[in-house]
Amino acid sequence: MTEAAALDAELATPVSLETVATPALILDVTKVDRNIARLRAHLAKLGTGFRPHVKTSKSIEVARRLFPEGTGPITVSTLAEAEYFAEGGFEDITYAVGLSLDRVARARKLVTKGVRLSVLVDTLEQAQALVAAAGDGGPMPAVLIEIDCDGHRGGVLPDDPDLVAIADVLRNGRVELAGVLTHAGESYNARGGAGLPEAAEGERAAAVAAAEALRAAGHASPVVSVGSTPTAHFAQDLTGVTEVRAGVFSFFDLVMHGIGVCSLDDIAASVLLTVIGHRQEKGWILTDGGWMALSRDRGTQRHPVDQGYGLVCDIDGNPFSDVIVEDASQEHGIIKVRPGSCGVLPKLAIGSRVRVLPNHACATCAQHEAYNVVDGTGRAIIGNWPRMRGW
Amino acid sequence: MTEAAALDAELATPVSLETVATPALILDVTKVDRNIARLRAHLAKLGTGFRPHVKTSKSIEVARRLFPEGTGPITVSTLAEAEYFAEGGFEDITYAVGLSLDRVARARKLVTKGVRLSVLVDTLEQAQALVAAAGDGGPMPAVLIEIDCDGHRGGVLPDDPDLVAIADVLRNGRVELAGVLTHAGESYNARGGAGLPEAAEGERAAAVAAAEALRAAGHASPVVSVGSTPTAHFAQDLTGVTEVRAGVFSFFDLVMHGIGVCSLDDIAASVLLTVIGHRQEKGWILTDGGWMALSRDRGTQRHPVDQGYGLVCDIDGNPFSDVIVEDASQEHGIIKVRPGSCGVLPKLAIGSRVRVLPNHACATCAQHEAYNVVDGTGRAIIGNWPRMRGW
Repeated sequence: MTEAAALDAELATPVSLETVATPALILDVTKVDRNIARLRAHLAKLGTGFRPHVKTSKSIEVARRLFPEGTGPITVSTLAEAEYFAEGGFEDITYAVGLSLDRVARARKLVTKGVRLSVLVDTLEQAQALVAAAGDGGPMPAVLIEIDCDGHRGGVLPDDPDLVAIADVLRNGRVELAGVLTHAGESYNARGGAGLPEAAEGERAAAVAAAEALRAAGHASPVVSVGSTPTAHFAQDLTGVTEVRAGVFSFFDLVMHGIGVCSLDDIAASVLLTVIGHRQEKGWILTDGGWMALSRDRGTQRHPVDQGYGLVCDIDGNPFSDVIVEDASQEHGIIKVRPGSCGVLPKLAIGSRVRVLPNHACATCAQHEAYNVVDGTGRAIIGNWPRMRGW
Repeated sequence: MTEAAALDAELATPVSLETVATPALILDVTKVDRNIARLRAHLAKLGTGFRPHVKTSKSIEVARRLFPEGTGPITVSTLAEAEYFAEGGFEDITYAVGLSLDRVARARKLVTKGVRLSVLVDTLEQAQALVAAAGDGGPMPAVLIEIDCDGHRGGVLPDDPDLVAIADVLRNGRVELAGVLTHAGESYNARGGAGLPEAAEGERAAAVAAAEALRAAGHASPVVSVGSTPTAHFAQDLTGVTEVRAGVFSFFDLVMHGIGVCSLDDIAASVLLTVIGHRQEKGWILTDGGWMALSRDRGTQRHPVDQGYGLVCDIDGNPFSDVIVEDASQEHGIIKVRPGSCGVLPKLAIGSRVRVLPNHACATCAQHEAYNVVDGTGRAIIGNWPRMRGW
């Protein structure tokens, strides 16, 4: 065997948590399926539809865990996602970020391909731009008007005269109004579940009030769309709501754990790292996982329990209590006992491997090309699922 | 013309800052060249070599601005970078992150391809693993011993007995010791330039002391490598140092501006965004650029001037004073006057475009597929330079 061939052989060992090149993004598909089944059952009980957000996974394979038949309905955060999932067979897509005027042509291109696409507006300018584009008689996406239910971001208030004015502009321009959409972004500021049933009711009430205001002015509003992962799980009554959106629930993360929506054991995504050194005198373990692998997201920084850059687990995903990635440079992570806790630093030899639970799954997964899939029964990697990126 | 053809035509306008799809990463190559020339001149005056770090750009085209002949010497932060730049013709590469034991085979594969590769160790375990691998008589990378000059991360102290012990292990195992390497990571905690000449001298002194200790024990240490962007620019004497490493200097960013290393006008990388809405009553302008486009890096959070998620400029890159991206969700950015400042929110109509200077160029550029290159003379995009990623 030649030297190069020998090296190739050495590099080509069967892939498992012990042999895959680190840092590596790991996804436990058994937990993904469990998280999906849990929310589906809750929404079925409340008798409302489900339009999951795929911006967390950005993966056709993960989206097919939500919809084995692979057609949707789904929610996306970029037109590139809409194009990628349409290419993958999804037919019913809501693009839930305020439409920028120069994206109208790209959106229409999807509609001409047969996608049932809805876009989001919250200003008269956007409605007028859509109407101007529709003037050529060509196909247009349907429109959802964004409603502000908690002052978190964009949207019109349910009693804002602009709501009906936007609907009038669309009708006069023969652009279809599909309904209203809101997102309780402020629910991310809850802790331990406190206030979430109320946030869910506030989200519902704002969306339903907006739909009623449109109907009172003679506009149909077939779609009444609400959702955030926290409110979706704590909603007790969704009367008048036709669909719920949620995204990070399929993977969950330490922010959702701190908000009170999931247990540590529900977190399906983690980053596998290798120990590359020690600084005993400082109580440090050095790993090959810095912010490039974990992301710069410090979403738990203002939580009662600050998880640093992530909570450290053994190679099989069992958390070490109070052991976190306390600091990170581009390709180095420093593991340390959480300051002020009574955690104990585990004995981890150079070359040993750990898994880190992310603060924010959407941000951490976006640092990687693909998911290394495990099923929780062993260390074998049973699949490699690519992610899309870009705009 | 068919409808699809009409849409294609509408989508195929010539690319400029006014027409490129946003969010888009913009790179002003004139500023890159100026930043490179500035540091080259400073190091030439000090009479030392230069081994720039390419982890900021991860781009062959940018690395060729550093080395028009395209062979190096360069520094990389991952083996995937080493493989990518070797593929692109670079022949002299230092992999400046502590070597994880399971990467030895991949590193050797590069050496068999003719790359002059140096790897970093700071423990006896790593040295022993390299020696064990070398037992088969095959080609091995050269080794640099990491020196701790400021307690920032890994490395052995210049007077640590492990320093000579590691060198002895390598010599007995017939693995080449190239020398020593240190990185003054603590220099990133400086503000307004204070303490940087001293940090540079501390970095130099630690590396030279370590090389002297090795030589006193009968080991050659031809390479004495130091560097961080702040210390590289503030070093006044580099006697005994053979090469300086620096990375972010080619692009610069708001963190380097806060540290006192560059002016705002030196920052070569920015993110082009489109205004998608307003919330007048809150003093907000909404854009299509959230943390996915800007990164979650909040490197100026503890600086006297907190730049939020970035400083806002007009489409041509002229900063609006005290106007920042104050909050970001995945695909939304909220522009606001910096709290406590007397800045004035610019009038920006929906559809207008802005450019955002990044806190941390390494992190922000990593969120994008490619650089949209401009030359500072106009709004035309004159090149599209891809980036590599992964490990």
